[in-house]
Amino acid sequence: MNKKGTLFVITGPSGAGKGTVLKQVIQSLEGLYFSVSATTRKPREGEVDGVHYHFLTKERFEELIEKDRFLEYARYAENYYGTPLDPVEEHLEQGHDVILEIELQGALQVKKRLPKAVLVFIAPPSFEELENRLRGRGTETEEVICKRLAIARQECANMDEFRFIVVNDKVEDAADRLRAIILSCRCLRENLGFTLN
Amino acid sequence: MNKKGTLFVITGPSGAGKGTVLKQVIQSLEGLYFSVSATTRKPREGEVDGVHYHFLTKERFEELIEKDRFLEYARYAENYYGTPLDPVEEHLEQGHDVILEIELQGALQVKKRLPKAVLVFIAPPSFEELENRLRGRGTETEEVICKRLAIARQECANMDEFRFIVVNDKVEDAADRLRAIILSCRCLRENLGFTLN
Repeated sequence: MNKKGTLFVITGPSGAGKGTVLKQVIQSLEGLYFSVSATTRKPREGEVDGVHYHFLTKERFEELIEKDRFLEYARYAENYYGTPLDPVEEHLEQGHDVILEIELQGALQVKKRLPKAVLVFIAPPSFEELENRLRGRGTETEEVICKRLAIARQECANMDEFRFIVVNDKVEDAADRLRAIILSCRCLRENLGFTLN
Repeated sequence: MNKKGTLFVITGPSGAGKGTVLKQVIQSLEGLYFSVSATTRKPREGEVDGVHYHFLTKERFEELIEKDRFLEYARYAENYYGTPLDPVEEHLEQGHDVILEIELQGALQVKKRLPKAVLVFIAPPSFEELENRLRGRGTETEEVICKRLAIARQECANMDEFRFIVVNDKVEDAADRLRAIILSCRCLRENLGFTLN
């Protein structure tokens, strides 16, 4: 059984619950590598280099862009964010499945570069529910909430680019579905590398 | 959410454990219709018409062949066996997923007729293990066992025609994989029929 892993790209609007769903899935499946993004922004309190992000200098980040060492990257405000290519490739070669949780634009970049990547969109059950969840956090200003909702509507308009849609009506059910997607991809004939003897 | 169901066609050699795996899966998922085959052979003790098989006369069976009302059928020895098309189509139209457990040749017929059908091959972990299982039953003669093993080797040579392979090393794991395949197909964008509003 000499097989390559599968790259799963998880996207969804802020408030769809990607983080909570992913946490449950990662705990319930073995052989999954969760890709750590790189960024040039400063670490916040409690953030650990190599765990929450790879914290890089702007010079180093631009050097890696130059050398084409990002699977995808983007610049927001003054900072770069990106997915380092090498660890992803190494894990795939070793037969591990890799999970990326990234922004929609990044996901579409990955799809262009690695068409075999499996794109999964985590969707809220409705925009009304999404709004409730964003307000329920109680941490965002009205302006931020309105901006997030507008972005969410834009993102959801791109759902057609995704192979799978996981509606997060209930976290346990959504995690069960995402886990099923990963597990079923392992059973695809071309991924299994199984020969009977 | 107006969506059609998916047809899952489950095949695998005698002794691979299809029946046990399917039983667990059917208990763990809702919205699944298990197709009942039709046959012209006489009911055995305890077999109920419409549950184990639809027991038909030879004339009725041939009439239905004539009218193209079988998704697939075959003749073994003196008897016909087949999958009635109408209940399968009705359930798919109602958005239910349908499971067929049939012989390899039947599965390949279904694939030709309904290319969207999802073909799943339940494989033993090895031929040695398959032989152990067949012998372990203690009910078959040496001749029958040898014949079954020869057929199993032929069937396994056709694994390439299947989208998914579920290796039945442990029934619980195999059932978990088959359940995942069905659940993940429900999350395919084109099957979900989900629009956010």
